Amino acid sequence: MPKKYVIIGGDAAGMSAASKIRRMQPDSELVVFEKGQHISFAACGIPYWISDVIEDGSKLQVLTPEIAREKRGIDVRIGHEVTQIDATSNTIAVNNLETGEKIHEAYDVLLIATGARAVVPPIPGVGHDGVFTLRSLADGQRIKNYIAEHEIKHATIIGGGYIGLEMAEAYKHINIDVTMVEMLDQIAPTFDKDILEKVTAHVVEQGVDLQLETRVDAIDKSEQGLQVQTSAGQIQTDMVIVSTGVRPNSELARDAGIALGNSGAITINDHMQTSIPNIYSAGDCAEHRHLVLNEDIWIPLAPSANKGGRVAGENMVGTATRFPGILGTAVVKVFDYTVAQTGLTEKQAREAAIFKDIESTTISAGSRAHYYPGSTPVTIKLVADGTTKRLLGAQMIGKSDVAKRLDVLATALTAGMTLEDIGMLDLTYAPPVAPVYDPIHVAANVANK
Amino acid sequence: MPKKYVIIGGDAAGMSAASKIRRMQPDSELVVFEKGQHISFAACGIPYWISDVIEDGSKLQVLTPEIAREKRGIDVRIGHEVTQIDATSNTIAVNNLETGEKIHEAYDVLLIATGARAVVPPIPGVGHDGVFTLRSLADGQRIKNYIAEHEIKHATIIGGGYIGLEMAEAYKHINIDVTMVEMLDQIAPTFDKDILEKVTAHVVEQGVDLQLETRVDAIDKSEQGLQVQTSAGQIQTDMVIVSTGVRPNSELARDAGIALGNSGAITINDHMQTSIPNIYSAGDCAEHRHLVLNEDIWIPLAPSANKGGRVAGENMVGTATRFPGILGTAVVKVFDYTVAQTGLTEKQAREAAIFKDIESTTISAGSRAHYYPGSTPVTIKLVADGTTKRLLGAQMIGKSDVAKRLDVLATALTAGMTLEDIGMLDLTYAPPVAPVYDPIHVAANVANK
Repeated sequence: MPKKYVIIGGDAAGMSAASKIRRMQPDSELVVFEKGQHISFAACGIPYWISDVIEDGSKLQVLTPEIAREKRGIDVRIGHEVTQIDATSNTIAVNNLETGEKIHEAYDVLLIATGARAVVPPIPGVGHDGVFTLRSLADGQRIKNYIAEHEIKHATIIGGGYIGLEMAEAYKHINIDVTMVEMLDQIAPTFDKDILEKVTAHVVEQGVDLQLETRVDAIDKSEQGLQVQTSAGQIQTDMVIVSTGVRPNSELARDAGIALGNSGAITINDHMQTSIPNIYSAGDCAEHRHLVLNEDIWIPLAPSANKGGRVAGENMVGTATRFPGILGTAVVKVFDYTVAQTGLTEKQAREAAIFKDIESTTISAGSRAHYYPGSTPVTIKLVADGTTKRLLGAQMIGKSDVAKRLDVLATALTAGMTLEDIGMLDLTYAPPVAPVYDPIHVAANVANK
Repeated sequence: MPKKYVIIGGDAAGMSAASKIRRMQPDSELVVFEKGQHISFAACGIPYWISDVIEDGSKLQVLTPEIAREKRGIDVRIGHEVTQIDATSNTIAVNNLETGEKIHEAYDVLLIATGARAVVPPIPGVGHDGVFTLRSLADGQRIKNYIAEHEIKHATIIGGGYIGLEMAEAYKHINIDVTMVEMLDQIAPTFDKDILEKVTAHVVEQGVDLQLETRVDAIDKSEQGLQVQTSAGQIQTDMVIVSTGVRPNSELARDAGIALGNSGAITINDHMQTSIPNIYSAGDCAEHRHLVLNEDIWIPLAPSANKGGRVAGENMVGTATRFPGILGTAVVKVFDYTVAQTGLTEKQAREAAIFKDIESTTISAGSRAHYYPGSTPVTIKLVADGTTKRLLGAQMIGKSDVAKRLDVLATALTAGMTLEDIGMLDLTYAPPVAPVYDPIHVAANVANK
């Protein structure tokens, strides 16, 4: 008898799994429950939609519930919140948010793909009108509407991570002044501070009022709009984005007795299986094996949600595919700069107990042959094990040709290459695209000295 | 007693070795003999100098003999042609081309870095004024002068390889009409024909009169200039570039009893040593180990000349560094397209005896998120071993973000990755730089089905 598959969460991981299951078992019973109104949307595109760089917001919907149902034969139920998993009876409790009806749904194999949610710090006034988090398409629509309906001249962004930086650019793009308040002494806290020097200066040059090492104490209503009270003074503003991080939606799993990791996200094996064998998990609610640390870590990013969802789907129907793990490879466009990383930062490597001797090297070199027009400096920081000379991580910034160049190092990292191996890689060379010694070679050779 | 090092050839390989030797043994005796007037020049930049994209030709000289002597302490003797190697007495015979003086120079350790030369096919009239090959800076200067001194409205390029294609773009850039005559049924013959379809159409759209499967029979002088007689008719033209390939300068080595490979280039081991232990070779005159074929092959390109020269220098002074080998990674800009390859083409893989079951897959996918402006199609062809699913080679074309994306596959190839490994690589994703499934993932996943 074919199994019945139930998926909690209709975003990248859930819909990747659903699509895979449907392709592999066209006749199986398959239900996806999604709390919100949208499935499978490109969250990373939202800042560019807010700034009108992407004009048509519907393009951010990779898949609609209608298309999922009609074209892919997936029974997607939006507006349905799963409130409980009973792993003994293999049933879930579901709340139809529209009708208030409560149902129970049985499963043979379950996937928890509940994702993550924005962390809202307990700042007094964070619930005022005009204060937003940004995670879902609905959040994006709310922000867009608020901008359209109010005369917004100034926005305050709390938090200088990826989303904060992308929103700063988005606001400046539509001529809204921006103050960014960050508690730490650096933006983009997943990077080592030292490699961000030029990018940080660039953010300020672009007119962002950047306030580092600043704590937000309260958000007050004022006659002119909102007033953000910080450890450094007051900011008069028209709207506030709180982008201070995310947290895994793992409570359902925890309450069902499923093991969580130290991060609070769901522990899975390389077949995406939780501690309960017929319950799988994928996406931002789960930890993944870090290929350099060789331990489970929570880095919620879209690529692992998409790939992990697919692998979960394959394993749920009985194909023993392996998800190898992640490097935390990430990239963010910060105005004219691209900032990318893979593997461990120097800070992370020094904190990791398994490495005794950490070396780091930072170089700058031209993106193209020095004599060819349009060459721009690329700065690379390599982190290596001083004993084995194995690469442990890389960070890269520059105005062009950064992301895929960083990917070369992500691939080298996956293969466990040493600095010498990297220095000898046979990479493309032609004056318009790269110097004969690519910045990657330069970095590896300097680091290997 | 310190050894005496002699290097034949002052281009990338020779000067890389010399610089390395000088740094490692500051007090050793070290002489470089160079037949021409220039050392260490960026040959790959010459087409862009001819087209004035690079205005200052002196920038193509990475190192001048004066700077090499004064700043680096390397005794460089330009205008000196080595005419014989006597491996029994460890001496070479040298001709001072300026004075006619013949000298003998003893060595303890010798490097042959004589490079390659343009092949001139035995076409009647190939010696006429206005017919050029392009290999050295002097060739480039001759072509530039000829264009400056004559009213050039039309040029004919014989041969559709890298240099021919770059020269076609160079001519069009300075408003000179171009006819390209190629004997084969495709341009860029190191690529599989099928991946070049769009690029070939693009070359024609750019106004190049492309004549494939056409043989040049003669070059005649005519009243209006030159007349190229081909198997398809006559071409009235003002100048001709013969870019029909290169040949290794290995005669000196051969005459000294040094073993050559099937290609006619010098055989070396992974310490860059020839069959005579105190004679090394590097650069375009030598074969290199191909990392996929695991056999020696002659692919004369700048990256291996630079790296191999350095490794030769290290080994010559007694440090046993290994040159791992090459993949034949190469890239060429063809007007708006970038065309790149690494490892084996499908044709090469099918011809290689060690692979029994060859699979190839070609896909096109967007360079960025589909909803982000500026995404352009990237076409990728993967060649894999059907039995092991190991990647054997990759080719890529597109209008942007091609070269370093291809380098990801060069790195995967070096590591011996399978299609599944590549499909799971944790690569950068953000709407402005890549889709969540990079074209690389798409290609690997489709190929792995």
